[in-house]
Amino acid sequence: MSYKVAIRSFKTLSYLGSYKKIRDRPIRYYCAAVLGAGYVAYKEFKRNKAEMKELIYLKNYMAEPITPLHQLQKNQDDMKTQMELLIMRIQAEFCRALEKEEDEEAKFKVDRWTRKEGGGGITCVLQDGRVFEKAGVNISVVSGRLPPAAVQQMKSRGKNFESKELPFFAAGVSAVIHPRNPMVPTIHFNYRYFEVKDKNEVHWWFGGGTDLTPYYLNEEDAVHFHLTLKHACDTHDPSYYDRFKKWCDDYFTITHRGERRGVGGIFFDDVDSPDQDRAFGFVTSCAEAVIPSYIPLVKKHKDDAYGYHERQWQLLRRGRYVEFNLIYDRGTKFGLHTPEARYESILMSLPLNAKWEYMHEPQPNSAEEKLMKVLKEPRDWLNIEKPKSTAA
Amino acid sequence: MSYKVAIRSFKTLSYLGSYKKIRDRPIRYYCAAVLGAGYVAYKEFKRNKAEMKELIYLKNYMAEPITPLHQLQKNQDDMKTQMELLIMRIQAEFCRALEKEEDEEAKFKVDRWTRKEGGGGITCVLQDGRVFEKAGVNISVVSGRLPPAAVQQMKSRGKNFESKELPFFAAGVSAVIHPRNPMVPTIHFNYRYFEVKDKNEVHWWFGGGTDLTPYYLNEEDAVHFHLTLKHACDTHDPSYYDRFKKWCDDYFTITHRGERRGVGGIFFDDVDSPDQDRAFGFVTSCAEAVIPSYIPLVKKHKDDAYGYHERQWQLLRRGRYVEFNLIYDRGTKFGLHTPEARYESILMSLPLNAKWEYMHEPQPNSAEEKLMKVLKEPRDWLNIEKPKSTAA
Repeated sequence: MSYKVAIRSFKTLSYLGSYKKIRDRPIRYYCAAVLGAGYVAYKEFKRNKAEMKELIYLKNYMAEPITPLHQLQKNQDDMKTQMELLIMRIQAEFCRALEKEEDEEAKFKVDRWTRKEGGGGITCVLQDGRVFEKAGVNISVVSGRLPPAAVQQMKSRGKNFESKELPFFAAGVSAVIHPRNPMVPTIHFNYRYFEVKDKNEVHWWFGGGTDLTPYYLNEEDAVHFHLTLKHACDTHDPSYYDRFKKWCDDYFTITHRGERRGVGGIFFDDVDSPDQDRAFGFVTSCAEAVIPSYIPLVKKHKDDAYGYHERQWQLLRRGRYVEFNLIYDRGTKFGLHTPEARYESILMSLPLNAKWEYMHEPQPNSAEEKLMKVLKEPRDWLNIEKPKSTAA
Repeated sequence: MSYKVAIRSFKTLSYLGSYKKIRDRPIRYYCAAVLGAGYVAYKEFKRNKAEMKELIYLKNYMAEPITPLHQLQKNQDDMKTQMELLIMRIQAEFCRALEKEEDEEAKFKVDRWTRKEGGGGITCVLQDGRVFEKAGVNISVVSGRLPPAAVQQMKSRGKNFESKELPFFAAGVSAVIHPRNPMVPTIHFNYRYFEVKDKNEVHWWFGGGTDLTPYYLNEEDAVHFHLTLKHACDTHDPSYYDRFKKWCDDYFTITHRGERRGVGGIFFDDVDSPDQDRAFGFVTSCAEAVIPSYIPLVKKHKDDAYGYHERQWQLLRRGRYVEFNLIYDRGTKFGLHTPEARYESILMSLPLNAKWEYMHEPQPNSAEEKLMKVLKEPRDWLNIEKPKSTAA
């Protein structure tokens, strides 16, 4: 376990050290000191050649961290720092992994933004690529003061706060990937950490989830996706996968249509047990499961054959995606109702193109109808009943 | 004035009489009686050859009325009946006027639907035409019982109701027309009547509005549109246009972007003065102003030249239209949160195609930027300052 932690901190420190845009000498000085401190971890790390290769590939973050480097260094043990470093790393790893599937010239556009009240974010968008029609990977690290009603909106489980305004901190990574090929599913994930201070007491919790939205159902893909998430959950709590899989099916419901957005995954709010480190460990495992759960599906299907019919169906389903995000998604609603919200980052989840046809109905027994059945009745992907043996 | 009323009742009666699907003899009998009663009006009407031609053209409703014919006949003086007949006529007139601009084969698809609790509607959609990419014209006539909280949502001005559940009646027509050519603006209108019974007292009010959403700003068109609406308002109350024009600019705001949906029009809620007949007369004038405010713009621009660039801009603006309708529009939200809502009718307002590009910015001094300026700062279209005369 300590070996893993060492690897992780080395990765983090290397990121900081090699960050390209650092031109200020004082920051370079910090980096040098940091790299020195990371030397023990580095020695151990070198033994693992495979991970080394990955490290060279993932040589930096997408942009300068939101919190100044010296502050991150000073508060290394603070969960706020650990979460910011995690989301920076997850963002970079995921963007690089997606770019690897793309044509050479298709790269993420990076926007680093700050907000007046405190904090900011890094929004990475790859638009109109050959493989990805629109891919958005966003992190935000924000702080300030919020009225309790707004804090309540961030939590699904009730908690009564006493102060009129609460100092808060929120850090999260979220991504929505809309591929070009209708045979490649859309993925969404989001992992976030909150801190709220009420009468000198700090309340903290984690939330998050990963879910898959196919346009054509491939059962093998759905099983692979859920299995990867289950593995990430199981090392932390054997009850997590079942609970969070159900929560995901319930949450991603387009209520007025009586259908789910996709084939689900996991979703949770208010995770504050067994303790902060272990809760963070769980969220780390989930975030690290995104690439192995999704990239194999991109590789497998990105060159599949499709035609006008399949594209039209994909566009209609993307219309449903828009409906869910704009009408029901709590994150989107909360974000857009926040004064001075960076709406371009919030709405990067919307597809490049979407379609609404009046009264569209899939043909009976078509591949489209097969998908609709699963969206209307979510399946238990990992306990699919096998045909019974007929042997006497 | 009485001549106009006569024309109007004759139109209504002719509709009922010539309604094609009437096959029951008792209903025919009613119609014959009704036509007899309409004879005086008919004599006067015949004098006007131009209107006669229009009458022959507008020979019937889009479908059988929601309220059974014999019931409509029995309660001719009731506002519920008058409103249902008005919206049936407005729907038919508008659909025919749109079809006249289309290719021969492009016709409205008509869906008549009923709801378990009471009432129903007629949804007319023309999709993928040469002139109209998606045009939806819907009427609904519904009744039942509602909790006061739901009734409050239908009213913008507060009113306290005492009963736990209130018997209600609502009848309205609403339409959204998304043309193919980016030089033709989108129009939306909605006129509605509510009745709520609380402790044997009947509360009633009208609401409605008409607004225009151009993709390219044509100031002459905006002035024509507003002027037509102002004329409709002015015969009823000289203060209406100014008040309802402002209300429209305020209501159709995409708050998170700080922009209006279009160049406005009129919008009002809770009209219950000076009396029921005169309020109905006002709503009738507004609804009758839709065709003269919009059809000339369709005729003028439907064959304008445009290219890929203009189409892309139109699709992006349609994305903004979706944002407004799904996030802010009270009617859409109220509709979708009603159990067993006919969501296909509510969402017919969404365009056939829409687009979301991350961080799209129009070129400086482009036609697109010119539109954006008006959306960010609504104009007083009918009091545009003229260049001052330089004569001594």
